[in-house]
Formats: sequence, C-alpha cells, structure tokens
Amino acid sequence: MEKWKFQGNQGLKSSAVSVRGVFNVLMQSISKEKEVVRLCRVDPTDNPLFSADPVAAHAVSTAAHSGNFNCYPPTFGLPQARRAIAEYLSRDLPNKLSAEDIYVTDGATQAIDIILPVFATPGANILLPRPGYPQYETRAALCGLEVRHFDLLPNSSWEVDIDSLEALADDKTVAMVLISPSNPCGNVFTYQHLKRVAETARKLGIFVISDEVYAHIAFGSNPFVPMGVFSSIAPVITLGSISKRWILPGWRFGWIATCDPHGIFQKTGIAANIESYMEITSDPPTFMQAAIPEILERINDEFYSKNLDITREAANALYERFKEIPSLICPHKPDGAMAVMVQINLSQIEGIADDVDFCVKLAKEESLLILPGVIVGLKNWLRVSFGLERSAIEEGLSRLKAFCLRHAKMSQQISA
Amino acid sequence: MEKWKFQGNQGLKSSAVSVRGVFNVLMQSISKEKEVVRLCRVDPTDNPLFSADPVAAHAVSTAAHSGNFNCYPPTFGLPQARRAIAEYLSRDLPNKLSAEDIYVTDGATQAIDIILPVFATPGANILLPRPGYPQYETRAALCGLEVRHFDLLPNSSWEVDIDSLEALADDKTVAMVLISPSNPCGNVFTYQHLKRVAETARKLGIFVISDEVYAHIAFGSNPFVPMGVFSSIAPVITLGSISKRWILPGWRFGWIATCDPHGIFQKTGIAANIESYMEITSDPPTFMQAAIPEILERINDEFYSKNLDITREAANALYERFKEIPSLICPHKPDGAMAVMVQINLSQIEGIADDVDFCVKLAKEESLLILPGVIVGLKNWLRVSFGLERSAIEEGLSRLKAFCLRHAKMSQQISA
Ligand SMILES: Cc1ncc(COP(=O)(O)O)c(C=O)c1O
Ligand SMILES: Cc1ncc(COP(=O)(O)O)c(C=O)c1O
Repeated sequence: MEKWKFQGNQGLKSSAVSVRGVFNVLMQSISKEKEVVRLCRVDPTDNPLFSADPVAAHAVSTAAHSGNFNCYPPTFGLPQARRAIAEYLSRDLPNKLSAEDIYVTDGATQAIDIILPVFATPGANILLPRPGYPQYETRAALCGLEVRHFDLLPNSSWEVDIDSLEALADDKTVAMVLISPSNPCGNVFTYQHLKRVAETARKLGIFVISDEVYAHIAFGSNPFVPMGVFSSIAPVITLGSISKRWILPGWRFGWIATCDPHGIFQKTGIAANIESYMEITSDPPTFMQAAIPEILERINDEFYSKNLDITREAANALYERFKEIPSLICPHKPDGAMAVMVQINLSQIEGIADDVDFCVKLAKEESLLILPGVIVGLKNWLRVSFGLERSAIEEGLSRLKAFCLRHAKMSQQISA
Repeated sequence: MEKWKFQGNQGLKSSAVSVRGVFNVLMQSISKEKEVVRLCRVDPTDNPLFSADPVAAHAVSTAAHSGNFNCYPPTFGLPQARRAIAEYLSRDLPNKLSAEDIYVTDGATQAIDIILPVFATPGANILLPRPGYPQYETRAALCGLEVRHFDLLPNSSWEVDIDSLEALADDKTVAMVLISPSNPCGNVFTYQHLKRVAETARKLGIFVISDEVYAHIAFGSNPFVPMGVFSSIAPVITLGSISKRWILPGWRFGWIATCDPHGIFQKTGIAANIESYMEITSDPPTFMQAAIPEILERINDEFYSKNLDITREAANALYERFKEIPSLICPHKPDGAMAVMVQINLSQIEGIADDVDFCVKLAKEESLLILPGVIVGLKNWLRVSFGLERSAIEEGLSRLKAFCLRHAKMSQQISA
C-alpha cells in the first residue's frame, strides 16, 4: 500500500471553535432516556408557534415555476432583489441606500465570510465584541486578520465598554464589529449608545460592521435602531438576513449593505474589494433572489408583531425561571434577539470544573442542551436560547434547576 | 474629516483573476450597435432549446410550501439529499457510496472553496491542469496552497501529460485536480487514460480531485467514466453539481463525494478536515436540499438524451465553422462539456498583441464575447462556449470570421 502523504491539517481546529462543532460534541453526550430539549441554538423554527408567512413559499414557488430564474445569478445579486433590500432598509434610515449598496449572500454567515477577508490587509486588526458570535473569530483566523476583543458590560445592559474599545485600537485597527440587537446577550442598544459607538469609530478612524441579523427583534422598551442611522458619522457595513425576523433560517439568504453617504468605501477601495470577493463566491439561488422583493414588501406588520409577542413571552418566562436558580445569575432581562447570557456561580456548585463540563454533564444527565459561554468568549457563563415555545422553556428550566440543585454545595442544598 | 485608515487590499486582485472579473471587463468593451453574442460563459440556460425539467420546480415548490424545511440545514446536508446523491453516483461505480460520503454545497463553486483549504497544510502543493478552471487558482492562492500546473496535450485529445505530472510532484504534493469531462477543452477522457491517471496518483501517493461538473455531458464516441471507478487504485474526491446536466446553474446546488473503499480519507484526517470546513460554511437552502431526491430520481432519460443531442449539434456547428477561419486552430473536435479551446495563429494576424487584446477588440468591433485563453492558463488561445443555440453560434462565428479577416495580414487577405 502506498503512503498517502497528507498528515492532517490542524489549522482550522486549533485556530477556532465553531458553534456547530461544539453542538455536535454536546449531541454525542446526550443520554437517550429523556426527550432532548435544545436551549443551545437560535433556530426560530424550533418554536412551533412561529411559522413563516405563506407569502414566502408562494414567492419562491412562483419564481421557480416561471423558469426565468434558472440562469447563474449576477455577481452581486439580482437587481430587483438588491433594489428591494435597499428600499426595505432605507425605511429606517435618513440617508437612503441604493441597489448598488447591496450585495446578496448565502445568509449572514456568508456575509461574514466575505467581509472579514476584505479587511485582512497584512498586519491589520479588527475589534470584536466579547461575548460575541464565533464565526467572526473563525473567519478572522482563516484569513490572518488579528482579533482584539472589547468587552460588553453585563452590569450596564451589556453596552460596549467604550474605554476598553479605545484602548485596544491602534493605527493597524481597520474596523469593529457590533451585533445589534445583541447575540448572545439579548439586549437592544439605545440610540444614544449607538451614536457614541459611531463617534468613537470616527475618532479612531475605523469602520463599523453592524451585524443586524436580529434587526427588529426588540420587544422591550428600547426600539431597534439600525447602525446605518449614524453612517454620516462613521461608514457602516450592515449585515442582515431573513433567518430570524422572517423565521426562514433554512432559506440561507442574507446581505451586505454599505451605508456610507460620504462615499468612503469607494474612495478607500473597500467597495472594490467586496466586489472582488463577491466575484469568486457562490450566491443564493437565482429564483430565491427573485422571491425577495415579495417577501420584503408583501408581508404585513401583524406577522412581525405576533412573532415579537411570542418572543417576549418566551424571554420573560426564561428570565423568571432563572431567578429560582440560586447558582445562576442573569444580569440583564432580555429585551432583544433570541438568546441571553447567564453566569454560573461556581462557588455554589460542586464537582463541576467549568462551563464546558457543566454543559456536557447537563446533556448527559438531563438531555438538555445549552451552549457553554466559552464558545462565545465568556468562560463560566452559559448562552441560553429562547427561540422556543414556552413549554419547552419551562421543561428545560425545570431540568436546569434540578441539575443545579443536585450539584449544589452541601451548604447551598440545605438553604435551598 | 477623519482619516479612515484602510488603504485597499490588493491581495486578491494580484493573486488571481476570476472568470467573472474578466467577463465584466469585456462587457464594458462592448459597442452598443449590435446585439451581444456571448460565447464566453458556460451557462446552459443561454440556449433557449434547453429547459429544465418541470420535476425540478415542482419538487422545490412542494418542499417550500410544506413548511417542513425552513429550519437551518444539518451541517453536512439533509440526510435524504445525501442518500439520494450517493445512490445516484453509485449507479456508475463498482464501490457503492453511502450517504456519509456526501457533503452538499452551494454549487461546485463552494465545493472548490471548501476542498482546497482542506489540503492547504504548510508547504503543501497541488497539481492543477493547464488549461483549467481559474476558481482553483484563486482559492489556492487565498489559502496559501502552492499551485503547480501539468499540461493537457492539445494534440493528444487533451489528455494529461503524465510525464510532466510525475516530474512536478514532490513529497509536499498532496493532490491533483482533473476536470472530467474537460472544461475548457471539451474532451472526454477514456477509461484507459483515467486509469493511468489513477495509477500515477497512487505511485505519487497523491489524492485525486475529480471535478465532474460536466458529468455525462459526453456526446462523441467516448462514454463518460467517473473517476470514482478507480477509487480502489487511488482515493478520489468527486465534485459535482446540478448546474449543467440539469440546466439549473442558478439553483446553486452541488456536492463533494469521497470515493474511497479503503477508508484512507478517514485515516489521514481528511474527512475530519472536510467536516470542520463544512461546519463553518453556509449551505444550500434546506428546501432546495429536500427537492434533490426527486430531481435525481424522477427525471427520465429522454430529458438527458435530448439535451445531449442539442449540445452535440451546437458543438459540431462550432467546429465546422472554425475550419473556415484560417487564423484559428481547433486541435480537437469537442465531444464533451460545453466549451472548446482554439489557438490564435498570431503570425497570420496584424495589429493584435495577444489573446486579451483580441477579445477586447472583438467585443468592441463585433459585440462578440469570447474568453481569452490566458484566463484558463493558455496565452494566445480562446475559450469558446457552445452552450448556446445553433443560430447564436452561427451568428457568433460569422462575426469572428469577419473580425479575423479584417485583421488578417495582407498576404493572408489575398490568399483568403
Ligand atoms: C450574530 C449572528 N450573525 C450571523 C448569524 C448567521 O445568520 P444566517 O442564518 O443569516 O447565516 C447568526 C446566526 O445565528 C448570528 O447569531
Ligand atoms: C470545471 C468547473 N468546475 C466548477 C464549476 C462551478 O460550477 P457550479 O455552477 O456548480 O458552481 C464550473 C462552472 O462552470 C466549471 O466549469
């Protein structure tokens, strides 16, 4: 037998951990005794109360049946899709976007995969939020873009620690990422705070990448404000998709929008660079793109507001149940997105080394899947999703409580 | 105004040229006087005689309407899609594939984007065919995988120059790529030749990546033979998609198949590596995946054979017309895929510097788009597509002939 020379490639594994990878490990830990409850991922189709608007399937089916959209799509997207997205986003913006500002992608996942290499000049660094969304770390590592983390502050409604942000930046810092509304923190940034972030970016001379996959998923007192509102202060690249608001994560459709009234992306060559990457990257199906105008224009407000009510109810149920578990601390009542961070008070727990150990044992003992915080950058925290129906949340939290009580330190068990 | 620090990123531009990028440049050269004829790209929907089988739109529409496929897809693909692809490919293979051998992708484009980084260990090199498909060069450059080119021999039916292949390989060579049937050469490799390639790969200890995007597009005397037939000689990774055979390039659906009866991809860690990349990569829409079993199982042979007849007719028309143009040489009558290479005899032409100059002037003077050979690795050749209806080919070749006559050297004009 010949020697096949390949000896494995540890590059990807050592440089980054993926949510899906860890999710697979947790899946393998599950005991088969109870039905699995998944509070670990943010797939809104997990909640049977949510369902997509029939307009969407109708639009896609019409486009597929027409036979007019079997051709390769244009590099940056079908013009009517780009126009529809520009108009949709412009409803909330003082500076209107045009079709040329929009690039369509296979979900926001691919938008991230395109936008990070765009900024990866030799020696450059990018500022990412902690906690955050690990696709950024993974893709930055793959394209050799140095990552520096600024903190989101749990006791200040998870706002950006502006001082730490400023301290991190140097003359090789090209951009910062904000996830707004915030995954994994579940908060909605205020107008004032976002404005301060934009002003800081301007002061530092860095671009803002605003991941708005959870745009409009704001069910508390803070309304959702797109970062593009401040694009005349600092140029903004907005990433979005139909995964969350439209409950269509499996449709894999997203976009990159350049919000930039002063044309700085053009002048600095960033627009050309985005276009180079678009040219070599696969695109969403052409018929899928053809369906987008109808999806963005014809779904009415009731659909959105009903889903917000469902999300609010799930988030509130989760938050109330956390209060009953002494060894877990939820610093901020969630009012946006579909997940929240809770801290494990390890001093109250016995026989558990850290958050990963916690989650693996939880999967084994309770068939309950929760993501360890280390995956999103916060060791000994948990990321808990509430994109589920209330009964699943109640069941999940009962198991979580039982687990925490079973592992509580003796002194705690007595007082509990 | 603040200084935004980004100063452009020339990495992508200098490392590689994309077909789509050049295509855009040619588009800009077009004179607006005549209707454009495009012999430059291989989008089979450009031929109005081709049309997708209605089974496909029906399958996708049913899946979308069902509401069962709005969730995020599983990392490697929907099990029923993986199974259907395994069964479809196994029809022509002695060693049957299982669902676990299949990974679904956004077209073969994304399959290339995944598979090259998989092999990009430090210092590794890969052998690519010349002429070839530039997505390989682009992606190899982006992941730091060294590229070495072996020749395809125009005067030996575009077969692989096995000697040059062997001479190129060293102990850092991990794999070779073959495009079979061949884009851009338009030939179908024989069983014997493919077997020799596999034996050479075994001798060199390198893996074979077989790009079979044009699988079954064989309309001459050589039948299409999948490289997987020889997977017991050398492990084979087959890339495929529904773009060409099913006339559905806009559906952006493809796959990676590991053909490997001895489990070498598992043992060497390549399978795990593919899986790591799949975990961080966007996928085809879930409902699209759900439609695949029907598309692969329910479309009948008449559809395929009718399309082969259309392709043969177009290829023959093209070949006959080339004979009328003295300054162009087509060394091999096309019998597969959807494009062919022709050499420019520059000694017979005046005032044209090279193939790019030829194509830019051709676009300007004749509104005829043809891809310069340098894009696929052969300077002063042309890549001409025949995925078009006969009348477009006749019109295109008339213009090409007029152009060549107009630019012929005086001595040639007299003898012509
Ligand atoms: C913050 C964030 N960005 C991007 C994505 C990717 O979204 P998409 O489904 O559009 O690929 C997600 C998905 O959960 C996310 O939470
Ligand atoms: C040789 C080759 N490989 C891969 C591709 C990409 O195909 P897909 O449409 O499946 O992305 C093409 C497209 O023309 C091709 O010619």
